[in-house]
Parts: sequence; C-alpha cells; structure tokens
Amino acid sequence: MKICVIGGDGFCGWPTALHLSNKGHDVVIVDNLSRRKIDIELEVESLTPIAPMSVRLAAWEEVSGRKIRFENIDVARNYARLLYLFEEYKPDAIVHFAEQRAAPYSMKSSYHKRYTVDNNLNATNNVLAAIVESGIDTHLVHLGTMGVYGYGNAGMKIPEGYLTVKIATDSGGEISQEILYPANPGSIYHMTKTQDQLMFAFYNKNDGVKVTDLHQGIVWGTQTEETKMDDRLINRFDYDGDYGTVLNRFLMQAAIGYPMTVHGTGGQTRAFIHLQDTVRCIELAIQNPPQKGERVRILNQMTETHRVRDLAQLVSRITGAKIELVKNPRKEDAENDLHVENKQLLGLGLEPITLENGLLDEVTNIAKRFADRCDRSKIPCISYWTANQRPA
Amino acid sequence: MKICVIGGDGFCGWPTALHLSNKGHDVVIVDNLSRRKIDIELEVESLTPIAPMSVRLAAWEEVSGRKIRFENIDVARNYARLLYLFEEYKPDAIVHFAEQRAAPYSMKSSYHKRYTVDNNLNATNNVLAAIVESGIDTHLVHLGTMGVYGYGNAGMKIPEGYLTVKIATDSGGEISQEILYPANPGSIYHMTKTQDQLMFAFYNKNDGVKVTDLHQGIVWGTQTEETKMDDRLINRFDYDGDYGTVLNRFLMQAAIGYPMTVHGTGGQTRAFIHLQDTVRCIELAIQNPPQKGERVRILNQMTETHRVRDLAQLVSRITGAKIELVKNPRKEDAENDLHVENKQLLGLGLEPITLENGLLDEVTNIAKRFADRCDRSKIPCISYWTANQRPA
Repeated sequence: MKICVIGGDGFCGWPTALHLSNKGHDVVIVDNLSRRKIDIELEVESLTPIAPMSVRLAAWEEVSGRKIRFENIDVARNYARLLYLFEEYKPDAIVHFAEQRAAPYSMKSSYHKRYTVDNNLNATNNVLAAIVESGIDTHLVHLGTMGVYGYGNAGMKIPEGYLTVKIATDSGGEISQEILYPANPGSIYHMTKTQDQLMFAFYNKNDGVKVTDLHQGIVWGTQTEETKMDDRLINRFDYDGDYGTVLNRFLMQAAIGYPMTVHGTGGQTRAFIHLQDTVRCIELAIQNPPQKGERVRILNQMTETHRVRDLAQLVSRITGAKIELVKNPRKEDAENDLHVENKQLLGLGLEPITLENGLLDEVTNIAKRFADRCDRSKIPCISYWTANQRPA
Repeated sequence: MKICVIGGDGFCGWPTALHLSNKGHDVVIVDNLSRRKIDIELEVESLTPIAPMSVRLAAWEEVSGRKIRFENIDVARNYARLLYLFEEYKPDAIVHFAEQRAAPYSMKSSYHKRYTVDNNLNATNNVLAAIVESGIDTHLVHLGTMGVYGYGNAGMKIPEGYLTVKIATDSGGEISQEILYPANPGSIYHMTKTQDQLMFAFYNKNDGVKVTDLHQGIVWGTQTEETKMDDRLINRFDYDGDYGTVLNRFLMQAAIGYPMTVHGTGGQTRAFIHLQDTVRCIELAIQNPPQKGERVRILNQMTETHRVRDLAQLVSRITGAKIELVKNPRKEDAENDLHVENKQLLGLGLEPITLENGLLDEVTNIAKRFADRCDRSKIPCISYWTANQRPA
C-alpha cells in the first residue's frame, strides 16, 4: 500500500513510518519538523539523541534496504503542496499525526493556546479538504485521544466513540439514539481533538470520506523493533514538564535519583499503551478500513488503566525511587475512575505489552543509559491551567 | 455599559451596534470589512446602497448625537490589537459576530471551506484567549445558529442548547445527564458553530468566562428603527445565491417578476426571526448576563418556523409571484419537521414581529424600491455541497 504519514518525524509518527515501511508498505513522511523547533523554544532536548531526518532515512535504507521519501510541508499552512502530493502520490491510506500534542504546552500562554487551535484545526481541515478536492479513494487514520471523553461518568464504561442514549419525546415516549460521546476536554489540546471529531463526522457525512479515529491512551516506551535496529533510528524520549508524559517523567526521575513528582493525590486514573502496540494498532487500522458509506470508525487505542499513584508505586518497586506529592498545576478532579471499552483492536489481533513486563527495559535501556543527557531543571511541570494556580 | 461589537459592519452587526448605541450604551465596532471584500470577490453588491463605515458613523452622530468608535482589526489574525483593545477599553460586554456566516459560501470550494474554518475558529479562540489574558470581567454574547442542532430528531422538541439523556450504567442501572445537544451540522459554516460551542464550554469551565450563545434562526427583514433614521444608515440586503437567505431571495424574485426558486420539494422546515427582534434579543442577552460560575447560557433566538414551500406561498399570496421547484444544491433531507423551544427570550420580554405582518413592508420599501440595482444573474445558488451535485 502507498501510505502518507503526516507528522512522521514525531514521537509516534517516526516509529509508525518505520513499522509500515518494514511491513512492505511504500511510505512518504510529511512533516514540518515543528516538534524539533518546539524543543528549541523550550530549551530542552530529547533524552535520546535523535538524528536529523536525512540521517534517519539514510540509516533506514542501510539497515532495511527500503527507501522512505520525505516532504517538508506545513500542512496547516501550505495547502497547495499537500493537495499536489495527494494528487501525484495517490496514497491508499493517510496517517494523521500533524497536531501539537501536549496538554501542558497548549496551556502555557495565549500564544500556545492560539498556536494549538490554529495548527491542529487547520491541519485536520486541510487534510480533509485535500482528500475531497483530489478525489482520491483513501482512508484517513487519525490519532485522537482518550481525553476527548473527559473523566465524568462514574459507573459507566466508556464506549468506543459512540454512546447510546435515551431521549424523551414530546408525546411522553422515549427514543434511543447513538451519539458521539459527549465531549469534556481537559485542556486546549484535548479540545482541538473534540473539534476534530466534528470535522470527521461532517466530511464523512457530506463527502463519504473514510475515517478511522483512534482514541489513544498515554503512550509509554521509547523504542519499537524498527527503531532499535540502529542508533541513528532511535526515537525521541521527552521527560520535560510539557512534553514528558507522566510515566516517562517517573522513569527519568527514578533513573537520576530525583523523587517522582505526583500531582495532587495521584488519584487520576489514566489509560496507557506501549509505543510498540501503538504502531501495531495503526497497522491494524490500515488493514481494516471502514466500508464505503460507513460512519467514522472510532477505536479506543489503549491496553490498561492505572491510577497515577499506583503507577508511581510500580516504578518505585522496580527502581527504589521515592514518591513526592506536589500541587496539581491542572484543573481537574482529584480522583476519578476509568473503565474503557477496547474490544475492537483486541478483536483485530492486538496482543498488548504490559507495563509490568516492559518497564524495567525502559529504565535500563533508555532512562539510565542516557541519564547524563538529562537537564534536571526541565522536569517539573511549569504550565498552569489558570492564572491563579501560578505561584506568586 | 461599554460594549464591543465585533463584526459590527455586517448584516446583523451594524443594526446591533446602532441599537445598543441608541439605548445609551457606549459602543466600539471592531471589523475588518471582510463582508464588503467578499462582495468584491463574488461580484455582487447589497441591493440597498450601503455607505462606507466613516459615512455611516458620521451620519449616526448627526441624527443621534452619539459617537461610535471604529477599530479595523482582523480578530482572527491580529490578536495583539484585539488584546490591547480589551485591556484599554475594558468592555462590559462583547458581542461576537466576526464569523463568515453563509453556508453556501462555505461550500463553494476548498478555499472557501478552509477560509471559513480558519477565520471562524481562530476568531472565536482569539476573543476567548484575549478575555482570559486581559483579565477583564466581561460577558461574551455570541451569535450561533439553529443549524448546530441539525434536523434529525422527529417527534422531539429542540431544547435550548442542553438535552437531558439517560445512559445505561455497567451495573444495569441508568443515569440521567444534561449534555450539549448532539451536533449535526449541514455545512462547513454550521460545523464551525458546533466547534465554537466546544470552545465556549472549555473556557467557561477552565477560566469561568461568562458566555451567552444565541442559536439564531434565519434572519429576515432589512431595517431596524435605527437604520431607518437616515438613508446613509441603511442596512445591507443580500439577494445573491450565497449570502441571500431564503426569504430575501424570494422577496427579490417577487419584486422583479422572477419565479421564486424553491430547492427540492421545499419541504425543509426552518426557524425565522426578524432583524428588529435580533437586535432586541441581543440587548436582552446583554441585560441578563449569566452569573459567575454559571455554565454557558444557550438561548434559541427564533420566533416562528415555516416550511420553505409555505413561505413561498405566503410571498406569492402577497405579491402574486410564481413558484418554481429547482434541484436542491445542498445535501439534506427533502422534508423535515422542526419544533423549537424558545421560552427564554420570550420570558425576558421579547414581542416578536411576525412574517404575516412584516413581509409587505419589505417587499415595498426594500425589494421594489431598489429593484433596479438587482443583478438577476446572481440570484441562483451555484454553490454545490458535493462535486457530483454540480451540473456537468
């Protein structure tokens, strides 16, 4: 298959591009290198030393014998080049990662809120408009987030995207309807993903665009089978307060003997998935496109849920690191339960890597190996959801 | 009160600015004159000869003795100037009309889809981010649309924004929840309004921004008490296939002896409101802000519903004009019912102008008076929702 991976230089995009190439697909990476430029803005670096794109691609050709083409396009800004690529390359599938993906980054300031909205919504709309204008028969696979669901409905399992509800009619009866799960985003970043859903639903209804939206949990792990094949292929590992997801921050803190900082009581329950499973899920989604005329297919891409404090205890058990409770910079409930339906990807054959089995490898081969590259001052989260949460 | 009317040069914005000024409020109009520039693109003109902004404002000062300040700012692009205005002027209320508002225009081409998404979503996000960053205590009144509801739920009255639904729990029970009415937009334009709702909900939850979202029906009528005071204050009247709403097109067609073109069977039921009632509703919304901590207040701003073919018959009865059925360029159900809850604005004292009473005045004083300015070639709708609806 011919596949465009838009955002193919990022944390999930790069290993996805390699995985699909390794499976024999023809891959074009589209990226504007925005993630590397944000590192410059934030004065941080990936803990793992990532190679420039041309070095990455040369190394991949060396070890696999396979070529990946790269197009440096800002898909939110340069519609003409995106359209031209679709018309010329005619991808069978398009994987869309081209969105600013950190909740804390999206909440840092007005600039960051505005950048996230402008970039993410224009990127998604441009991809959809270019699919329609080019007239190609393709399948759009989008990386959404579990965060579109919010964490509101105690006692209720979160379904895969659509919720059946009963509504009272004028005549005193009741009708049953399946609706998009009511959105309750916790940050500007998450909000843009709930707005993306409305675009997918519209272009699917009006133009018949085939879309799979993967509502992903928090990704942990750094390497996949492919990125391990050569040091020049190594994937990024973010441990800073903005881009470092909760588990990566814990691993980093454990590796350098810094106490693991748990926000609030650590009572937030979150969904997780290993990066290796992410790339497998995307491959499964591509292999199983929706039928023509089918509504947007929504899959929950996560394999286990943990309370944040339990996660800290798990890392502590493996590494001996200490736990420190700090004030929560986010605006959210202190404690929540989370029950998530994830039958569909398991049904397609996903066999999950568990935290229990994979964590030690991360600590040894990533966090400890590169510990001397860590800038400790960048670990704490200094993005506050509202002005009055900011320390005076 | 100090009030910013953003988009205050448009069809609803201009009469709103005058009405609020006439009621004694201090008004600043913010507009980038985009609506006039779109006239240039589409090679059309308002049927009524509208004066340039400086002439409008000088005339208003002459007849009313009241000054209105004008700031030419593109709120989707020039955040810095918008923020500066909020910090310096400290408006008590902000009325937000700064969005591309025509469904057919939003569907003309990829450019128009992309412009509508980019302009409308960045405008709304910039207004919200600037309210938060400036720290002003203000009330945002937004013009939404009845179109966010779609036309899907037969037998059910459309509530004012929030819908009570029952959801099954894991344990076999049921919980009742109030959710934003599930969105089902019929065009890119309507889609942006459903995305706006998610921004209002988020900024309201995270930052406590006070928002009233007015879900407006199709506006008919051209003049208000204020715009009638001097010919230089006259409001715009759009009769072209993109911006001319259904009733204005019928009136124009009747006035020049052109058959009234009804799309499909004319079985679509739509909600209507007179422009004079629109400006009163906005005044009522400003006078009744939500409490601090209250969720987004959603009001349905419409006064009557009609099936499009009944509307054509009403105009035919008054004017003797003929009716012609043409192929529907939109993608929508041929027939729909519409029952809308609109208690809240009526409860605040709105006394509606009915179509039955106001139509003749429109025919005589607008459509017939300016009939010689009409370009007949611009009346048909030539925007098609999908490529295969376009004539070969």
